[in-house]
Amino acid sequence: MNVFHVQFTNSESKYKQLTDHIKSLIVKGSLPHHYKLPSIRKLSTFLNVNNVTIVNCYKTLEQDGYAYTIHGSGTFVIADNNLIDTNEGYSESTVFGDVKYDFITSSPSPTFFPVKAFKGLLNDVLERDGGFAFNYQEAGGYLPLRQSLRELLKGYKINVPHQYVHIISGGQQGLDIIAKTLLSEGDFVFTEEPCYPGAMATFSSRGAKTVGIPVRNKGMDLQILEDRLKKFNPKFIYVMPDFQSPTGYQYDLAHRRKLLDLASKYNTLIVEDDHFSDLNYSINKIPPLKALDTENIVIYIKSFSKVFMPGLRLALLVAPPIFNTPLIEAKQFSDISTSGFLQRAFDLYLRKDLWQEHVNKVKKVYQSRCLTTISALEKRLPSSVMFTKPTGGLCVWIQLPPHICADDIANLAKQHGVGILPGDDFFIDRKQNFFRLSFTTMAEKDIEAGIEILASIIKGTLK
Amino acid sequence: MNVFHVQFTNSESKYKQLTDHIKSLIVKGSLPHHYKLPSIRKLSTFLNVNNVTIVNCYKTLEQDGYAYTIHGSGTFVIADNNLIDTNEGYSESTVFGDVKYDFITSSPSPTFFPVKAFKGLLNDVLERDGGFAFNYQEAGGYLPLRQSLRELLKGYKINVPHQYVHIISGGQQGLDIIAKTLLSEGDFVFTEEPCYPGAMATFSSRGAKTVGIPVRNKGMDLQILEDRLKKFNPKFIYVMPDFQSPTGYQYDLAHRRKLLDLASKYNTLIVEDDHFSDLNYSINKIPPLKALDTENIVIYIKSFSKVFMPGLRLALLVAPPIFNTPLIEAKQFSDISTSGFLQRAFDLYLRKDLWQEHVNKVKKVYQSRCLTTISALEKRLPSSVMFTKPTGGLCVWIQLPPHICADDIANLAKQHGVGILPGDDFFIDRKQNFFRLSFTTMAEKDIEAGIEILASIIKGTLK
Repeated sequence: MNVFHVQFTNSESKYKQLTDHIKSLIVKGSLPHHYKLPSIRKLSTFLNVNNVTIVNCYKTLEQDGYAYTIHGSGTFVIADNNLIDTNEGYSESTVFGDVKYDFITSSPSPTFFPVKAFKGLLNDVLERDGGFAFNYQEAGGYLPLRQSLRELLKGYKINVPHQYVHIISGGQQGLDIIAKTLLSEGDFVFTEEPCYPGAMATFSSRGAKTVGIPVRNKGMDLQILEDRLKKFNPKFIYVMPDFQSPTGYQYDLAHRRKLLDLASKYNTLIVEDDHFSDLNYSINKIPPLKALDTENIVIYIKSFSKVFMPGLRLALLVAPPIFNTPLIEAKQFSDISTSGFLQRAFDLYLRKDLWQEHVNKVKKVYQSRCLTTISALEKRLPSSVMFTKPTGGLCVWIQLPPHICADDIANLAKQHGVGILPGDDFFIDRKQNFFRLSFTTMAEKDIEAGIEILASIIKGTLK
Repeated sequence: MNVFHVQFTNSESKYKQLTDHIKSLIVKGSLPHHYKLPSIRKLSTFLNVNNVTIVNCYKTLEQDGYAYTIHGSGTFVIADNNLIDTNEGYSESTVFGDVKYDFITSSPSPTFFPVKAFKGLLNDVLERDGGFAFNYQEAGGYLPLRQSLRELLKGYKINVPHQYVHIISGGQQGLDIIAKTLLSEGDFVFTEEPCYPGAMATFSSRGAKTVGIPVRNKGMDLQILEDRLKKFNPKFIYVMPDFQSPTGYQYDLAHRRKLLDLASKYNTLIVEDDHFSDLNYSINKIPPLKALDTENIVIYIKSFSKVFMPGLRLALLVAPPIFNTPLIEAKQFSDISTSGFLQRAFDLYLRKDLWQEHVNKVKKVYQSRCLTTISALEKRLPSSVMFTKPTGGLCVWIQLPPHICADDIANLAKQHGVGILPGDDFFIDRKQNFFRLSFTTMAEKDIEAGIEILASIIKGTLK
């Protein structure tokens, strides 16, 4: 027990000092791997501190990868000689340092996840199916879930037999299997510009060349699209018509119809990526392209990551009949199938009508954060800085004057505890004067405070 | 209630007659989607049959996709106008008709899955992490699990820092991200012949050409390998040194060392696929290639699907340092990350030392089935039919005389209730006179009975 003794100073909080002390014990090898740390009660008595100090300490050790907890058993040491930063590569999961105002994260707050309901469903699945829940699943997906999703899609005016509804391990996998099915070295793909970087990376990993078509308030620039369609012969046009990432733009009905007409006229396909249509804060509902697709030229991906939780890794893909088998084969040779266990739990979730309830709940929260963001930007930003005013989704897209570099602003902002995402990754030609502001995980007072700081940094730079 | 009335005959079991009746009600639309079927008690009273009849009927309806059960609520109809066969494409999960003796399935029996223990762990994870368990995960994997697996790998004499241990969504995904990282149009890959078809399909989907190297009792034919290495310049050699699928062959130490030497001499990589090393029934343990790999030329995949359960979709990949980042990027653009929730549960499973216990348990069962299979084959098969005698894994590989076609045997066998897997898919040139016999899900008396039938069919064909 004596190794845990700390001579507390007033320089920092006690839990922080204790955490640092235990970390150093682990790093220098004084506490072996799987060593059981003292109970909270014991250690708080020994150190003569409040229970909460120990709780916070153990929680921090865990978050930082120095310990793990087994419920009912205690907290145990993770002693590894190679404790390193694990944030390799680009990822939305990247831990964004210690920023107080995080406008970077665009995945839903874990606190919104319906843990209790979902736990009940997981247990129901295990009760009902036992080990069968962990067997191989058909590559197309667990039949009852495909049928539930078919029902769900009717609410979006998409009416297809369930055998064209494929269960995939998240929206990104949808892009991957589409790329595998349709793209070869040297093919062209049209994307919106700006565009989600994960899509561009997937297409170019198949050797395809990406041509960007500017996206505006009501949708893709159709004149430029037609000009380029005359010159190139793209395999498909990749679009996000509802609250496009990163801009938040929504295509109006006229743009949707015209886009379908052009694709048909120039004999190309459309890949429709629906991450955000459920987070529509206006009363104006516009049907997805797939619902308007009379010629079967739209491949539709619907992700549940932004509304539900990304860690489920579940999405759906609706395939035109002629691509049904090749897409299932591509899925099979990618990961055989998506976890049948999670498919079964999600199926029950839908069958118990919990989905719409959850959507309504989170939509209310995000809508309010969206309005707060827009009104704070209107109030604080100088007039030379432009920004979108989305009526759905989780982000606002900001355009700085051409001579200002978003990277510089991001660095300055970070020093003041504000995290923003520079926009160059969203452009083929890496434009420097844009950034994305996501309000997904921010409380409204923090949105206001963060934007105030950000605006003053921008103003300072503009001087 | 009257619609459920059945005039039972003696032709078939009552549960089967009732099942067919309810299916026909569903197909013709008499029972709508989500219709709640009568309780077991009510229906058994109404029909004057045993409870078990209703239980079996409802279970069959569910398995066949006509109903779903919500624990505590009842059984509900799945009414879909498009109820079709969902077994699109090749899949180990394919339902193999009504064969009584299934020598096709090579995925573990769901009844072996430690449901109770795993259920406890899933609940522990939810208690501990709440919604955070469903957040995005680092592409490389959940840190504590990477550390647990690093510890586990030490038992296989593989000693690597955890940052080179990647969590992937099953072994097939490992092949996919390796192909994405290393292969372009026109590249060569060497595989064993025969070889797992899912690997060949993944490599060829990147436009690579596959060259087969015959595999024998002690490993790949090294003379042929070296001859081909002189002619081609493969990106890698794909091997399964432990109880190779489909033959069950295990490489001896000399073949392992020589293979590493040749790869090094001709400047190529090795992809080692470890599905079966845990199912080693002999006392002779040979270290994996990765453990002997002093030059960092082996990419190692370890699947947990064959020992644990495939539906978890969890495997690990050990990357040589120079491929670490590209492999993580390929993973990221494939599906961002593997379900963090299942990673957390599996991590606890390992930390509670339940893994080895489970391996020992199932190994005993499979070993006994393996011995029964081999001894039944020795007793029953005519001497012109050859077969492997594996000391590990889940399959025996059978070679018929050259003029006999395995497809014909499989068709005849199926008519007699025996399912076998013709081997042509395992060859680049689709050899016709081989088949695979898996004893994974078969009780020993069924193994004996099934092989007796099979042998008499083969003898009949040889006449």
